Amino acid sequence: MSLSAIALNCTLKTSPSESSCELLLSQVSEEFARHGVDCPIVRAVDYNLLPGVTSDEGPGDEWPGIRSQILDANILIMGTPIWMGQPSSVCKRVMERLDAFLGETDDGGRQVAYGHVAGVAVVGNEDGAHNIVAQLFQGLNDVGFSIPASCSTYWTGEAMGKTNYKDLPETPDAVKSATKALVQNCIHLGELLAGAQYPSKQ
Amino acid sequence: MSLSAIALNCTLKTSPSESSCELLLSQVSEEFARHGVDCPIVRAVDYNLLPGVTSDEGPGDEWPGIRSQILDANILIMGTPIWMGQPSSVCKRVMERLDAFLGETDDGGRQVAYGHVAGVAVVGNEDGAHNIVAQLFQGLNDVGFSIPASCSTYWTGEAMGKTNYKDLPETPDAVKSATKALVQNCIHLGELLAGAQYPSKQ
Amino acid sequence: MSLSAIALNCTLKTSPSESSCELLLSQVSEEFARHGVDCPIVRAVDYNLLPGVTSDEGPGDEWPGIRSQILDANILIMGTPIWMGQPSSVCKRVMERLDAFLGETDDGGRQVAYGHVAGVAVVGNEDGAHNIVAQLFQGLNDVGFSIPASCSTYWTGEAMGKTNYKDLPETPDAVKSATKALVQNCIHLGELLAGAQYPSKQ
Amino acid sequence: MSLSAIALNCTLKTSPSESSCELLLSQVSEEFARHGVDCPIVRAVDYNLLPGVTSDEGPGDEWPGIRSQILDANILIMGTPIWMGQPSSVCKRVMERLDAFLGETDDGGRQVAYGHVAGVAVVGNEDGAHNIVAQLFQGLNDVGFSIPASCSTYWTGEAMGKTNYKDLPETPDAVKSATKALVQNCIHLGELLAGAQYPSKQ
Repeated sequence: MSLSAIALNCTLKTSPSESSCELLLSQVSEEFARHGVDCPIVRAVDYNLLPGVTSDEGPGDEWPGIRSQILDANILIMGTPIWMGQPSSVCKRVMERLDAFLGETDDGGRQVAYGHVAGVAVVGNEDGAHNIVAQLFQGLNDVGFSIPASCSTYWTGEAMGKTNYKDLPETPDAVKSATKALVQNCIHLGELLAGAQYPSKQ
Repeated sequence: MSLSAIALNCTLKTSPSESSCELLLSQVSEEFARHGVDCPIVRAVDYNLLPGVTSDEGPGDEWPGIRSQILDANILIMGTPIWMGQPSSVCKRVMERLDAFLGETDDGGRQVAYGHVAGVAVVGNEDGAHNIVAQLFQGLNDVGFSIPASCSTYWTGEAMGKTNYKDLPETPDAVKSATKALVQNCIHLGELLAGAQYPSKQ
Repeated sequence: MSLSAIALNCTLKTSPSESSCELLLSQVSEEFARHGVDCPIVRAVDYNLLPGVTSDEGPGDEWPGIRSQILDANILIMGTPIWMGQPSSVCKRVMERLDAFLGETDDGGRQVAYGHVAGVAVVGNEDGAHNIVAQLFQGLNDVGFSIPASCSTYWTGEAMGKTNYKDLPETPDAVKSATKALVQNCIHLGELLAGAQYPSKQ
Repeated sequence: MSLSAIALNCTLKTSPSESSCELLLSQVSEEFARHGVDCPIVRAVDYNLLPGVTSDEGPGDEWPGIRSQILDANILIMGTPIWMGQPSSVCKRVMERLDAFLGETDDGGRQVAYGHVAGVAVVGNEDGAHNIVAQLFQGLNDVGFSIPASCSTYWTGEAMGKTNYKDLPETPDAVKSATKALVQNCIHLGELLAGAQYPSKQ
């Protein structure tokens, strides 16, 4: 069975600006590659994602393309920086657009994300990762994604710190280990669900 | 394959006081029974759960018994009332005790909750369910539980309302439907993981 | 002493679309007017608020104008709809832009929002208000706003409801009462701080 | 005008165990003393705080004594450790007991905490402070406390860290500075409100 993944980088900085979140996601992507799973990274802020909660908000909306990539992949990794201890506005925009999945069902009455798994990657100078993981797990699960065990990886510096993840001399072992677990568990659950979709709605 | 489940009622009221959370969990339990899965309800506040973050906090601690029941079951349903928009202190106590799972691993280096799935049931007079689901998903996933699709059921009344779930003339269809999905998806993922544990830690 | 206020509507819908949040904020604004305080409503999504965390993100950025209005007013009311139990992406964008206040200080080393007070208004079909109030209080306080007693007003319908606030036959008394308290307390604290700024940083 | 403060340490460890939260609160208390304000520290877990949401849960309940101390003081500092990115169960218990303030009013119809100010102190090996500040600000404000500008102090180590605040070689300057601001701003707002209570409910 051939799985695929997609990672969304919800940094506030457009390409080609450096982004700590991009670095963390590139590590996630490399780990997926090591398992033979392709995981391109899409930087959401490079696209015109119109405000709204439908899957197509009309002329100029570039969400439909990203939406297709998400549905074509078995695994979604949401990556976001921390601002004020919370997910970025770009991440929130993506989540709002995913909200449309609530009303979009397959022939079995299952939401379109059923069978897909999701994990979260968070990075910031300081505190906020657990709250962001919480908010994203809740939203992603609500719209149909399954969450494998230990499905987040994150880095934050000491309280009120200024250091960026991309400027660390090396990636901390704890982060490497969390990234490995995230990827391994996404693949395991992704394979199980690819082989055995949830039952129809009764 | 024979699955089992356990539901924890984290109400602040000791037995045999009536509890809206008990009602919601009894509906969850009945739905499990309909699928042939046993799901006893344990009211946490009836036990002496000592403060701490280990699996046994010493003389008088009644957590070890509940811990065993959780690990003996494939599926954990955390049920909590809403106070101030947040999970109850009893629920937080249970979560803290589960924190010990982080350091308890099997021969494969997997946390002891790997292979177990978890869902959440929340009930309150008013607003707070999504936040509670978020906080619990994050904590439960951190200690190794997998979260099936659409894995929460909840009821809240209108903003600043006073009505209790247990006093509703009948259970709203939306709640019934969420409870059905929670149970069905827990069973599906529970079966998959019972048959195919996550890989060893590498 | 003459106070002034400003309310930001963080709906996802551009003007002149109807917005439940606009209705709630118009009730807040009317209540301010009853006390002789002017409180215009600015719909943030009508402006081009560039992603970033500085006070001016360059060409095309329309944040500087809103920023001036906020600093010219004693009282800020952040109004947001609920999506997925969380504040809107537009609200998050505004909060990120306010993040710049952390590094902007007056002659006394005080952040520029010191002496300003903030309150929150939230509206949604269903559950999420307390979480949003929490996230916004934390962010607003972090950048220097003071929070008067009982400083939120909100409406949410029953769990998984579809009714909009703007379609209610009448405003519930509990919401009216919360709105009155929000306004009265903002004015009281706004006046106290207008007359007695926080001491200089030591 | 003579102000007073009280700090609640919501560690899970009973006295006389060492507690990082105790250290942070002792620094807060010393800073209050420098301003001539007395701020005793009460370790909540040393008391039998029964589950419930009234001000007296009957025989054996030791909340009434703490409640009196809170109402006798102008300023409340809630101190909590971080477990799983969230406030401790002891902290949640205290918040639930404060919930009773919602229904307890003075002759002017004001909740009993009106005129009181609150701040938050959080400490943990790692990530969770902002979320805790958010949850506590929301709850404390709901029951009537006013929140002065920049009213939190906290320390967390690097992501997934194991170091305790009490084992740091010295207190980081950023924490010292946050503690100073917290104390100074609590005193300023406490004095203003002690001299000018919120208006009666209309």
